[in-house]
Amino acid sequence: MKQMHSQAPSLRVALIGHSFMGTIHAQAWQSAPRFFELGLKPEVAVVCGRNDDAASVFATKFDIPQVENDWRKVVADPSVDVVDICTPGHLHSPIALAALAAGKHVLCEKPLSNSLGEAEEMTAAAEAAQERGIQSMVGYSYRRTPALAHARQLVSEGKIGRIFHIRAVYLQDWIVDEEFPLVWRLQREHAGSGALGDIGAHVVDLAQYLTGHHITGVSALTETFVKTRPLVASSDGLSATASDERGSVTVDDAAVFIARTDKGALATFEASRFATGRKNALRIEINGARGSLAFDFESMNELWVQDNTGSRASSGFSRILVTEPEHPYMDAWWPAGHGLGYEHTFVHEIADFVRNIAAGTQPSPSFRDGLAIQRVLAAVEASAQANAVWTATNYEF
Amino acid sequence: MKQMHSQAPSLRVALIGHSFMGTIHAQAWQSAPRFFELGLKPEVAVVCGRNDDAASVFATKFDIPQVENDWRKVVADPSVDVVDICTPGHLHSPIALAALAAGKHVLCEKPLSNSLGEAEEMTAAAEAAQERGIQSMVGYSYRRTPALAHARQLVSEGKIGRIFHIRAVYLQDWIVDEEFPLVWRLQREHAGSGALGDIGAHVVDLAQYLTGHHITGVSALTETFVKTRPLVASSDGLSATASDERGSVTVDDAAVFIARTDKGALATFEASRFATGRKNALRIEINGARGSLAFDFESMNELWVQDNTGSRASSGFSRILVTEPEHPYMDAWWPAGHGLGYEHTFVHEIADFVRNIAAGTQPSPSFRDGLAIQRVLAAVEASAQANAVWTATNYEF
Amino acid sequence: MKQMHSQAPSLRVALIGHSFMGTIHAQAWQSAPRFFELGLKPEVAVVCGRNDDAASVFATKFDIPQVENDWRKVVADPSVDVVDICTPGHLHSPIALAALAAGKHVLCEKPLSNSLGEAEEMTAAAEAAQERGIQSMVGYSYRRTPALAHARQLVSEGKIGRIFHIRAVYLQDWIVDEEFPLVWRLQREHAGSGALGDIGAHVVDLAQYLTGHHITGVSALTETFVKTRPLVASSDGLSATASDERGSVTVDDAAVFIARTDKGALATFEASRFATGRKNALRIEINGARGSLAFDFESMNELWVQDNTGSRASSGFSRILVTEPEHPYMDAWWPAGHGLGYEHTFVHEIADFVRNIAAGTQPSPSFRDGLAIQRVLAAVEASAQANAVWTATNYEF
Amino acid sequence: MKQMHSQAPSLRVALIGHSFMGTIHAQAWQSAPRFFELGLKPEVAVVCGRNDDAASVFATKFDIPQVENDWRKVVADPSVDVVDICTPGHLHSPIALAALAAGKHVLCEKPLSNSLGEAEEMTAAAEAAQERGIQSMVGYSYRRTPALAHARQLVSEGKIGRIFHIRAVYLQDWIVDEEFPLVWRLQREHAGSGALGDIGAHVVDLAQYLTGHHITGVSALTETFVKTRPLVASSDGLSATASDERGSVTVDDAAVFIARTDKGALATFEASRFATGRKNALRIEINGARGSLAFDFESMNELWVQDNTGSRASSGFSRILVTEPEHPYMDAWWPAGHGLGYEHTFVHEIADFVRNIAAGTQPSPSFRDGLAIQRVLAAVEASAQANAVWTATNYEF
Repeated sequence: MKQMHSQAPSLRVALIGHSFMGTIHAQAWQSAPRFFELGLKPEVAVVCGRNDDAASVFATKFDIPQVENDWRKVVADPSVDVVDICTPGHLHSPIALAALAAGKHVLCEKPLSNSLGEAEEMTAAAEAAQERGIQSMVGYSYRRTPALAHARQLVSEGKIGRIFHIRAVYLQDWIVDEEFPLVWRLQREHAGSGALGDIGAHVVDLAQYLTGHHITGVSALTETFVKTRPLVASSDGLSATASDERGSVTVDDAAVFIARTDKGALATFEASRFATGRKNALRIEINGARGSLAFDFESMNELWVQDNTGSRASSGFSRILVTEPEHPYMDAWWPAGHGLGYEHTFVHEIADFVRNIAAGTQPSPSFRDGLAIQRVLAAVEASAQANAVWTATNYEF
Repeated sequence: MKQMHSQAPSLRVALIGHSFMGTIHAQAWQSAPRFFELGLKPEVAVVCGRNDDAASVFATKFDIPQVENDWRKVVADPSVDVVDICTPGHLHSPIALAALAAGKHVLCEKPLSNSLGEAEEMTAAAEAAQERGIQSMVGYSYRRTPALAHARQLVSEGKIGRIFHIRAVYLQDWIVDEEFPLVWRLQREHAGSGALGDIGAHVVDLAQYLTGHHITGVSALTETFVKTRPLVASSDGLSATASDERGSVTVDDAAVFIARTDKGALATFEASRFATGRKNALRIEINGARGSLAFDFESMNELWVQDNTGSRASSGFSRILVTEPEHPYMDAWWPAGHGLGYEHTFVHEIADFVRNIAAGTQPSPSFRDGLAIQRVLAAVEASAQANAVWTATNYEF
Repeated sequence: MKQMHSQAPSLRVALIGHSFMGTIHAQAWQSAPRFFELGLKPEVAVVCGRNDDAASVFATKFDIPQVENDWRKVVADPSVDVVDICTPGHLHSPIALAALAAGKHVLCEKPLSNSLGEAEEMTAAAEAAQERGIQSMVGYSYRRTPALAHARQLVSEGKIGRIFHIRAVYLQDWIVDEEFPLVWRLQREHAGSGALGDIGAHVVDLAQYLTGHHITGVSALTETFVKTRPLVASSDGLSATASDERGSVTVDDAAVFIARTDKGALATFEASRFATGRKNALRIEINGARGSLAFDFESMNELWVQDNTGSRASSGFSRILVTEPEHPYMDAWWPAGHGLGYEHTFVHEIADFVRNIAAGTQPSPSFRDGLAIQRVLAAVEASAQANAVWTATNYEF
Repeated sequence: MKQMHSQAPSLRVALIGHSFMGTIHAQAWQSAPRFFELGLKPEVAVVCGRNDDAASVFATKFDIPQVENDWRKVVADPSVDVVDICTPGHLHSPIALAALAAGKHVLCEKPLSNSLGEAEEMTAAAEAAQERGIQSMVGYSYRRTPALAHARQLVSEGKIGRIFHIRAVYLQDWIVDEEFPLVWRLQREHAGSGALGDIGAHVVDLAQYLTGHHITGVSALTETFVKTRPLVASSDGLSATASDERGSVTVDDAAVFIARTDKGALATFEASRFATGRKNALRIEINGARGSLAFDFESMNELWVQDNTGSRASSGFSRILVTEPEHPYMDAWWPAGHGLGYEHTFVHEIADFVRNIAAGTQPSPSFRDGLAIQRVLAAVEASAQANAVWTATNYEF
């Protein structure tokens, strides 16, 4: 018996980049329609990479029928509906602008761009395109961690009350070794910034997203603990080998900053690749008058919730396994307690993006949301360059 | 530019069942070749289910070209290379025997069967088939959790030394509510047993697999806390609604047992669906002369390792995030700290199964391994029926 | 200005033994009246030990005016009001019987005795003495951990509902090393049993105390992993040095057992001194229809409470810091979050004991409570000696 | 038999204040000589408080023979050897100066004073007195938590290597309720500052003590979330009741700051009484090239230690129960795993102070150490008042 159910209309996706982010996006594009009703049936129709061989191997693995090495050609292809940008940051702006101009929906990895000017231009283009029914979104995937989406719900429902404190860190340790090579993420011209833009961007996004507050000003310090590193001899995208020559690290190894929000909270932030022993410790805690929330991505299926409205004798942080069907995204998955992984935050992101395309609505976070994050990051860099001087983010209320 | 890399030879898979296990197997079959070099390219060519409509919906979602409703027809199909059995336990034996007889490789979900006699027959058939180059494997997927595969390595390397204690529980709470309906897992004729075979089987497997010990005898108690439940009004495989009538629960709600192993360890086991607040707490701890290990599936990316060979002042349980490229399976995935989910244990299982088929070698756990677990489960049931009398497992040394 | 507030009437205490338990009792006798209103002012008037010098050093440190080396003389002393027995188990019975006969209130360390016969005789004597206004108590101090006293409250208030499971272990590792010497706790004639009586007794007590259930039967295994050890060359009570000769270990190193209770719960128990890496892991978890409780003495200021009566989406184990003034005993101590230590369970025990003496009421746990625990321990030993045969505890309903 | 061992020479202590700190000091003075060899036998000979009745009740409980209500009289008493200052901060300076002038050893609670000028004067007086054999110490008791003393050892031994990050918070929540009354700790004239001086001082001390680094500059924000509170109707020192009138809160509710150290580390700090659900979360983490340390006072018997010098596959944070005899202070106490409480940090403090007096050596932390902390606190306040401007601490290298 042949199956006869009709497919949803197809959505042809071009994936630009096939390294870490490209790989996880490819997997997410293929998983999303299996677990979520999307209204459209996405398929990755083309992958684009500078190295033909590597791109071809990738295409074979992920059943992608077409391989290209020039993103301009991909963007110009009339059969492409969506451009998914998984390149280093310096390419975000040109690709996104071209794709939007060509009428493609755009998913752009974070941070939106390497400069505030680029981000502003991209935002303007995205908003113009939106009026023509073209959607765009920036890939702050951690928002789609069920525990964090649930945290957002709890704040929205008033369970936390007036917020006093936001306490966010994103701690990794993959470059503590002085001999770790000078990969593109450690070069300003490709990455824009270091820990700040790569991982600090995520906690800035989450701090604002979870609370609904906006950061109005910051005082910041940054540091590059290891000033020179071996140049890269060879790289396969996910790992690299070192050569004998050394070059200068031109981005921050760590950034720390304190901030105020428009609704009166104090916030502290730290992003570091030198937090020895911490692998992917994206941690955020929010303290309010009615309760608190705490999260650590190293235990991503858990949200710690404190309810301050009852007796002090019975009030502690409760470890919620965010795996119940009532929790965001979880009715698509497994029975309670059978947790998800990092990968699934991208499946959720793709699912939400496609649903917005199908519905003709603006996905979240928009390029404007991404721009707001860039303004905070720019303020952090400006403050750090001026000895921690207080620097407004120029958020428009 | 079209991609031109040649594909590995195809391996055509028939999936019998498309409920919880069928779904996760389908996803794993499609993910495994993307992340692991397998030598063969598996594809799910047909899905079989009793309900045509439901099977068709499933096939559409998972891009499966063919739908059937009679497993006998599937097993007889000469184009099918692999039969993957994801049905309730009472169908494991007839399908597996027919598939092996037809020369298909067989992956059978656990527990191997609902009776010891069936398991013995299946094992004999599997071993006869193996001589003809036909592989079979039983689906104790938790072994492929990277943290547990790493635990096995540590024991094998002598890091734990002489083992004194095994302490294993598998705790869930999904039927604490007396009004939860009488689904097939609560009926002896379909499920064989209750918590014991469903989840107790996993901790029996892990206790033996991780330590290399064999359980030689047990003393056991079982209990059915809620004797009658509402009959099922309707079910979609993953959830069910209750009718007004009630029927008898004919399986155990919980089983507890103590055991000895062939190498002199004491072991304690508990499997329960009445451990309120515990969602999927598969926990195992092993204490040896040189160190200890502890694991909880609710935090599946962590293994706790204690090294007893150094100073007492510096010796504690160390929380290892089992996400480094050196850890089992992990070089296929993401950077350190970006954890996996429940789903990925099945991706690893499929990858190992296909590699064994490609290499013509016996996958592990074999049906004989599954039979050894059935013997322990049978001894537990016999002991429990005779007031916890000591019951040998008749493990053959 | 001299202080002029009148003291409460004095209560003269004789402390028999000044090793580990004697030390902590001495500290507790002196702390209790400083933090609790007792109605009587206890003072340790005499300490008794076999070694005059050691006892004198102890007396000096703890400001105890009198030292004796013959417990019979102490018990006969008319100025003594209370006899506090901190000796090895084989002396509990003779001292307690003599003290009760002499009209002294008696606090006896646990386990009550080394044999069931002794325990029965002691219980009869205690109950006869009670009619003459003489109080007695057995020292299961862990009950007075605020977290566990609070757990008892929660069960009593119905917060846990019908209890399905009790899961209790007491894990230590201080004799994993085969060269650890053969101290009195490893000799049957002094200690009665090994891990079972020393630490297993505590979890048996807590299982019954916290739930209000009684254990009706057990199936048990015990093991002595290391059969011979070096004899003790010298000892100061808290530590010992090894000689060249070895002797036989005559007690269990570990005991595991499963049990049923009079109210229908299943229980599992383990007591071990071979749980490598676990230092004082007295852990107990209780699962009921309305909620669950979990505790680990290694984190003694915490109780984990799960409320199963609300939404599944918000229901997890809540880490309650049991340091609020509303919690048992805690209004006597420090601000919230400033935790107590092991020592304080004894301060609470002494406070409760003295208050009972002042009020002329029976302290808890009584010798009869201690006897009930002995019956369980005896059933465990009998079961273990008969290959885990089911053994009733002969609890009288 | 009377005991005949000679006592160590007596050390007569005057305790000024008998509220929270006074109580715990009294207990510590009496416990220290029982568990530690001190060379001197301290006894609290006099307690001083403004309220005669309350002081008398206290004296009765703690067996203190003399009660006074004028600290000047106590300081002038020739029989007093030690003055222990447990008053609100505004009295630290006058009492300490008078006591030092009168030749008394001084233990002064932290923070050293309410102003930098006072702290400088006290330090000068202490150093002059030290030349006359008079010792003084400031009461940063958390240093004597065994886990933190052990952390200091590990840093000193080079186990952490070059330090990149210090991350310290001290979080409480006791004034989240807007109706909590305006106790002295919320009034600048008595307390000097709010969370900053009360609890922030501790983490500043620990950050410098544990690492051996000095904070050279800070950028800070402070906030008073609740501006007015009910006046105190009545108070017993540990708790207070509210009146109908309200007054202004004149201290900070929370302070956050970022800092650099003289040896190149970045540091973040937060002190808050508005961290809902956190009771006494004094947390500090240190990341270095060779390893990391993490601590939380809510689990005060644990130190988490990461060793970065081995394989990444085996390197995680290890939970060390700091209860082994090899650990600082722990050979005086109980077997492994039998933890200490908050109280015991003061026992250790007193023990170290008395040993220094007996040996004629400078206790640590000295008043100069206390002054260095005050300089950081003053810089934090100055920075916060000037919009987070970078403010040097003027630490003298």
